[in-house]
Amino acid sequence: MAIKTSPLAPARFPDLPAVAGVRLGVAEAGVRYKGRTDLMVAELAPGTTIAGAFTRSLSASAPVDWCRAAVKGGKARAIVVNSGNANAFTGKAGVTAVTVTAEAAAKAVGCKPKEVFIASTGVIGEPLPAEKIAAALPGLVRSNLTASWEQAARAIMTTDTYPKAVTRTASIGGVNVTIVGIIKGSGMIAPNMGTMLGFLFTDAKIPAKVLQALVTKGVDKSFNCITVDSDTSTSDTILLAATGQGPTHKAVKSAADAHLRDFKAKLDEAMLELAHLVVKDGEGATKFVEIRVTGAASNPAAKRIGLAIANSPLVKTAIAGSDANWGRIVAAVGKAGEKAERDRMKIAVGGIVITEKGMVRPGYDETPVAAHMKGENILIEVDVGVRVGGKAAKGKATVWTCDLTHAYIDINIGYRS
Amino acid sequence: MAIKTSPLAPARFPDLPAVAGVRLGVAEAGVRYKGRTDLMVAELAPGTTIAGAFTRSLSASAPVDWCRAAVKGGKARAIVVNSGNANAFTGKAGVTAVTVTAEAAAKAVGCKPKEVFIASTGVIGEPLPAEKIAAALPGLVRSNLTASWEQAARAIMTTDTYPKAVTRTASIGGVNVTIVGIIKGSGMIAPNMGTMLGFLFTDAKIPAKVLQALVTKGVDKSFNCITVDSDTSTSDTILLAATGQGPTHKAVKSAADAHLRDFKAKLDEAMLELAHLVVKDGEGATKFVEIRVTGAASNPAAKRIGLAIANSPLVKTAIAGSDANWGRIVAAVGKAGEKAERDRMKIAVGGIVITEKGMVRPGYDETPVAAHMKGENILIEVDVGVRVGGKAAKGKATVWTCDLTHAYIDINIGYRS
Repeated sequence: MAIKTSPLAPARFPDLPAVAGVRLGVAEAGVRYKGRTDLMVAELAPGTTIAGAFTRSLSASAPVDWCRAAVKGGKARAIVVNSGNANAFTGKAGVTAVTVTAEAAAKAVGCKPKEVFIASTGVIGEPLPAEKIAAALPGLVRSNLTASWEQAARAIMTTDTYPKAVTRTASIGGVNVTIVGIIKGSGMIAPNMGTMLGFLFTDAKIPAKVLQALVTKGVDKSFNCITVDSDTSTSDTILLAATGQGPTHKAVKSAADAHLRDFKAKLDEAMLELAHLVVKDGEGATKFVEIRVTGAASNPAAKRIGLAIANSPLVKTAIAGSDANWGRIVAAVGKAGEKAERDRMKIAVGGIVITEKGMVRPGYDETPVAAHMKGENILIEVDVGVRVGGKAAKGKATVWTCDLTHAYIDINIGYRS
Repeated sequence: MAIKTSPLAPARFPDLPAVAGVRLGVAEAGVRYKGRTDLMVAELAPGTTIAGAFTRSLSASAPVDWCRAAVKGGKARAIVVNSGNANAFTGKAGVTAVTVTAEAAAKAVGCKPKEVFIASTGVIGEPLPAEKIAAALPGLVRSNLTASWEQAARAIMTTDTYPKAVTRTASIGGVNVTIVGIIKGSGMIAPNMGTMLGFLFTDAKIPAKVLQALVTKGVDKSFNCITVDSDTSTSDTILLAATGQGPTHKAVKSAADAHLRDFKAKLDEAMLELAHLVVKDGEGATKFVEIRVTGAASNPAAKRIGLAIANSPLVKTAIAGSDANWGRIVAAVGKAGEKAERDRMKIAVGGIVITEKGMVRPGYDETPVAAHMKGENILIEVDVGVRVGGKAAKGKATVWTCDLTHAYIDINIGYRS
C-alpha cells in the first residue's frame, strides 16, 4: 500500500547545522526492509553526557530496559538505532540481541558497552537479527560516519511519511550553542511498525544530572502531551546527548542556573516542535488539533481532561469531517473522571465561544466556527468551570492531537500483511 | 446516508411474552425525526418497584439527574423515553423540559411526577421540545397503550440498525415469573445521536432495595464490561421495574434470599444478552470480540487490562482486518497501567496459545489463528502472569467489544449534517 506524505508535513526538511562532537552514519543492514537504510549510528565525542525518558509501558522492549540501566551512568559514546524490528516481547533472545549490538558498537567506537545506547522500532515479537547490525557496525564506524541529519532521520523511519528534525541556537551566558533533534513516529504508537524515537544533540557542556532534569521536565510538556490514537508504544525513547565540544561557555552546575534559562527555553521549544512533527505525521492525519483546558482542579486534572478529548474517537471523527460537534467535547469532558462543572463549562472553537452556563450560547451562529473547522489547524478551548473557595480554579494544560480518518483504518487494518 | 443492518444482528426479533402490569405505547411526537416513532411510554401497575443504574459521566443529562433523584423513592408508574434529542447540556431549559414531561405523564397516568422516569437520547445541546411530548402523552396513555415490545424497541432507536430485546423465565421458589428487556445503543456512546438506554421489566414482586442491589451487581458484570469506542454517554440509563402483577410467589426480603437465586441468574443473563446486543450493533461492527483476562492482581485490575485491549484502536483495526496481530495486544496490556509480568505473559487467540515466557511460542503456526480471525466471533485470552506469594494471581475479568472499521468513520465523521 502506497502511503502519501501527510498533508500537514512541513514544505521541506530544515537546514540543520552540524553539532560538534556528533558524527552520523547510516547503512542498509537488511534487518527487515529491502532497498532502504535501516541502521543509524551517532558517534559521540568522549566526555558526552546523556539523559533520557522512556515509555511507561509495562511491556517495555529490551532496548528500553537497556537504556534505562545505561542512562544511570550518564555517559554516552554512541547511539545505535535500527528500524524494521522493535526487539520487543522477544524474551531472553531480545536481551541477547541488545547485548550483541552494544558490544559490537563499543568495540567499533572504543568504549564500554554501557556507553552505547540502543533503540529499535518496527515489528513486535520477532527476534531481532542483531548479527546483521553487528556485522554492519565496524565498517560504518571506521569509514562511513559522513551521513547528513536528513539521512539519519530517514534511516529511523517506519510508517513515517516524512523525515523530522528541528534546530535551535541557545545562549549560555552569552555564548551560543547548538541544539539539533531528529525524531520518528507516526502513531503515538503503532506498536507494530510504529513507535516514537527522538534523539537530541547539543554541543553544550552540561552534567548528566542537569541534563536529566531538563529532559524530564521538557518531556512532560511536549511528548507527554501528544496523542494520535491513545496507544502507548513498548519502545518510546527520547535521548538528549551533550558533547561539550562547542564553544566554551560558563560552567553549568544546576538546572536552576540563571545562565541556563535560554538553553532550557530553546530545548523546550525544540522538544515541542519535535512532538508536533510527530502529531502532524499521525497515521491518516489531515488536521492538527490544539486543545487548551483551563479552570480545572489542578494541572494534571486539566491534562487528563485534555487527553480525554484528544483521545475520543467521536471528537476525532467529527474533526475529520470538519463538523463543529461540540456535544462530543462535552461528553469527552464528562468521561475524563476529573472535576468539571457542567453548568459553568465554557467551550470555544477557533476562538469563538459556543457554550456558557451549561448550554449553547443564545444566538450562537455556527458559520465562523464551521469555517474554522474546514482549516488544517483546529483550536479547541475548554474552561471546565471548577471553583475553589469561591474563585475560578487555575489548573490548565495544552495537548495536541490529529483527526481520525479512513486513512488511519487503511494503515492499521492489516499492516503486517 | 443509508446504514445497513449490522452483520452481527440476530436473524429475527425474539418472541416475547407480555409482562403483567406493563402496558406500552408509542407515538410520532415529532421531536426530531420525521415519519417514525420517537416516543415510548411504559405504563406500570400501581405498586411497581424500580431500580436503576446511570452514566458515570460528570456531564450527565437532565433526565439522568431526574432519574437519579426519583429512583430513591423506589416507586414507578411510568417510563417515558424519547429519541432524537438527548436533553443533555441544555442548562435550566433542560430541567424544565424534564419537569414538563414528568408532570404531563403523571397527570395522564394518575400518579406523582416522581413516579415517572424519563430517558432521552439523540442530539446534545439542543433544547428538547417537551411541549410536543406533553401534547402526545394524554391521548397515548388514555387509548393507545397497545404497542408490542418490538414497536417499543423501535421507538427508542437512534443509530441502532436493529431493535433489541431479550426474555427469560425465572423461578422464585418454584413459581415462574417473566423478565423482558429492551435496549438501544450502537456506540457505547455516540454522544451525539447515540447512547445506551435499557429497560427491563418483570412481573415478580420485589422490594425496591433488593431490586437496586440486583441491578447494581448485574450492571457491573454486563453493561460496564462492554465498549464500542471508549466514549461514555451523558445519558446512559438502565432501569428495572418489578410490577408484582405476576403469579404469587414466596416473599422476597433480601438479595441474599435462597429462593431468589434463579431470578438473579436469569436477570444477569438477560442483562448480559442485552449488553452483547449493543456491542453487536456497535457502529460499523463486523466482528464480536470477547476478551478474557486472567492472572491479574485483582478483578478490577483485570477489567482495566481487558478494557485497555478492547479500547485500543490498533487492536480493533487489526481485528477488522482479520489480522492476528498479537503484538498490539502486548502493547495494550502494557499501557493499561496495571501489574503484568511481561516475561510470563500468555496470549491465546481462538484458543490457540501464541506466546509464553515473554515471547512467541517456538514453532508457532499462525494458520489456525488466521482462520479463527476470519470468523465473526473472536476470542482473545490473556494471562498477564502476575504472581503473589509464589502463586499465580487470581484476578480475572471478561469484556466485550467490536472491531473498528471504515463504517465507524462513515457514521461519525459528520453525523449532525
